[in-house]
Amino acid sequence: MSATAIAINAALSTAAYCMTVRMIPRFRGMFIKANLFGKDLCKKDQPQVPESYGVVIGCVFLVSMFIFIPVPFAFDEAAATDAVTGGKPDTFPHDKFVELIAALLSICCMIFLGFADDVLDLRWRDKLLLPTIATLPLLMVYYVNYNSTTVIMPNFARFLLGTSVNIGPLYYVFMGMLAVFCTNAINILAGINGLEVGQSLVIAGSVLVFNLIELSLGHQVESHAFSIYFMLPFFATSLALWKFNRYPSQVFVGDTFCYFAGMTFAVVGILGHFSKTLLLFFLPQILNFLYSTPQLFHFVPCPRHRLPKYDSKSDLLHISTTEFKLEELNPLGRLMVTILRKLKLISWQEVSTDGLVRTNNFTLINFVMVLFGPTHERVVTQILMGFQVLCTLMALIIRYPLANYFYTETSR
Amino acid sequence: MSATAIAINAALSTAAYCMTVRMIPRFRGMFIKANLFGKDLCKKDQPQVPESYGVVIGCVFLVSMFIFIPVPFAFDEAAATDAVTGGKPDTFPHDKFVELIAALLSICCMIFLGFADDVLDLRWRDKLLLPTIATLPLLMVYYVNYNSTTVIMPNFARFLLGTSVNIGPLYYVFMGMLAVFCTNAINILAGINGLEVGQSLVIAGSVLVFNLIELSLGHQVESHAFSIYFMLPFFATSLALWKFNRYPSQVFVGDTFCYFAGMTFAVVGILGHFSKTLLLFFLPQILNFLYSTPQLFHFVPCPRHRLPKYDSKSDLLHISTTEFKLEELNPLGRLMVTILRKLKLISWQEVSTDGLVRTNNFTLINFVMVLFGPTHERVVTQILMGFQVLCTLMALIIRYPLANYFYTETSR
Repeated sequence: MSATAIAINAALSTAAYCMTVRMIPRFRGMFIKANLFGKDLCKKDQPQVPESYGVVIGCVFLVSMFIFIPVPFAFDEAAATDAVTGGKPDTFPHDKFVELIAALLSICCMIFLGFADDVLDLRWRDKLLLPTIATLPLLMVYYVNYNSTTVIMPNFARFLLGTSVNIGPLYYVFMGMLAVFCTNAINILAGINGLEVGQSLVIAGSVLVFNLIELSLGHQVESHAFSIYFMLPFFATSLALWKFNRYPSQVFVGDTFCYFAGMTFAVVGILGHFSKTLLLFFLPQILNFLYSTPQLFHFVPCPRHRLPKYDSKSDLLHISTTEFKLEELNPLGRLMVTILRKLKLISWQEVSTDGLVRTNNFTLINFVMVLFGPTHERVVTQILMGFQVLCTLMALIIRYPLANYFYTETSR
Repeated sequence: MSATAIAINAALSTAAYCMTVRMIPRFRGMFIKANLFGKDLCKKDQPQVPESYGVVIGCVFLVSMFIFIPVPFAFDEAAATDAVTGGKPDTFPHDKFVELIAALLSICCMIFLGFADDVLDLRWRDKLLLPTIATLPLLMVYYVNYNSTTVIMPNFARFLLGTSVNIGPLYYVFMGMLAVFCTNAINILAGINGLEVGQSLVIAGSVLVFNLIELSLGHQVESHAFSIYFMLPFFATSLALWKFNRYPSQVFVGDTFCYFAGMTFAVVGILGHFSKTLLLFFLPQILNFLYSTPQLFHFVPCPRHRLPKYDSKSDLLHISTTEFKLEELNPLGRLMVTILRKLKLISWQEVSTDGLVRTNNFTLINFVMVLFGPTHERVVTQILMGFQVLCTLMALIIRYPLANYFYTETSR
């Protein structure tokens, strides 16, 4: 039964946590020697901090999962060894087995590509291409095992499109984009100590809570058990990393971690059949992406780095800024900036009489300081993690009581 | 049918070759910037050469294979989409599907670990551990799909042990060790321009010839088609790498390539059920390993590097040497050295009257120069590749006419 498998998975995860906590300090020298380190710009002495530690916990995660591979099938009656021939019977759930392996292939591929990105410093277009490549095996398995591309419509749209719509290949595009989104969304809400791992821990915790609620309700038991198999070791290894990555950071996590985390979430969302619910848990990342669009798509000048500015006297972070003349933006940029200013979502300072203005860079991190003024780095991370928890609670409220309003049957 | 799948695979491999040839020169700057380069010590000007290019061709290989995943099943009647439900029928060969995915997982994991080794410079014991970890998914799939651990005995041993012996868990140990052996065997027969890729090309070519012979004989069609699916893109991407890695090397391949190549061979050997034949193709690597043992296990002093010495005046390679006193070796070491000397397999020079002697380092590369005297680097690689071809021919002779003598039925 899956309860036993989950218990074994929990034990493996605990072991993985202990191992990771021991391993992380030991690798420091190796990373520094390999030129994998960065300066922590938001500290007085700007210490050298080893970078790309996502690769260490990614490896521990993979090893734990490799050892776990046989477990879900060892307690499955249909998978029990045929006593007569000593071989596997025809009832062995090969379809479940291949899901597990393909999910691991996608995650392994993403950790590898993330590490290659950290070492080789790939270009932006590669960063969008890589998750797409790494999702291919996953989509293949989805195609072979389900190929269900039907989307259940909310009530208000049913008079237009019917109860459900088969969107065919678009569904695969959606799933591919989900992986691209998850990996990059975590990567752009980043840059201060502990934030990447902190948000991933909250999301992983949210997914675990959601899986447990669904399991207790008896919904889709296999899918949610499948999700738990991945989330527990991910949570455990990330927690170990958090111990060293939270303020003040002893190690940085690198793109490797963001890609690893994003892909793991995308995998459980897709193969656990709760990709819409997963997106609810990504609300802060979605807001950060929307808030960033004027700069990401260059409607507003975007400096190379948009990290907050560190003031060594007060040990606080201040907003980092960008300057432009409103009338020099194109119409869409002007509209965006005007709306954001009206809603008081950006700071606004007129620098000179000829129309040059200075606003904060459009990131959620800077927005925290627009709201609260100069803030300590540790507190910024705490505020953003708190917001992430709040969003999860909201997501669960939307998912449960409100879903009945929007959908006659509960959709998955 | 598998002929169509092989044709598509060949087309994909050709595309992969063209892409790799274009990509390799473009990445040079990125590798140098990332500190991934080494000095070519066997050249007059000791140029800086970018290192770890195995990672580039590994990625192209993985992408080609990801795209190829659906192909073998698209032409399989049992896998054809059920026209009524639009879903996959119960006859879909999930067991074959999972083999393909698990094989890719093992290879992807090995490329990743190889690259991590190149960047982080892992310790020796990790180098033995890594292939074992990467083989786990493969062994899991073998267990689930076959769990056939029976070894067919050669005729001369049948009176002792019967026609076949079930060696149980030992068979898994054998397969795990095969992966460790294949990855490290290529890694230790290395160090001069083009040798790693050259030997891998010959082995891949040998495997392909063997697969085609077996296919034409109608033996184990599925297994050998499976092997070809991996060997063609591997051969194509390696050939592209060879263009840049052969004398004089413009790029180095790194441990990444050796691990990638070794794992790919182990995968096709294990899942294609011809691991014994595969070992025959590794004869030069086995000889190199055996010849190296006195130094690898420290019966004889082993310097940090055992590469041949470059003489810039003549532009030729000379043997590199080690010095010791015969009576100071332990008895086993003394025995080994005495036998090697009697068989004239090592050079022998008495340095001083107190028994200090100088011999070549015990590698196949140095042995070439013991035989032929100082030799040009390009020629050494050619000699060793020629020897590899010779061994393949011998292997095919052993495999075909002689197998009938040793085994009443042809064993796999």
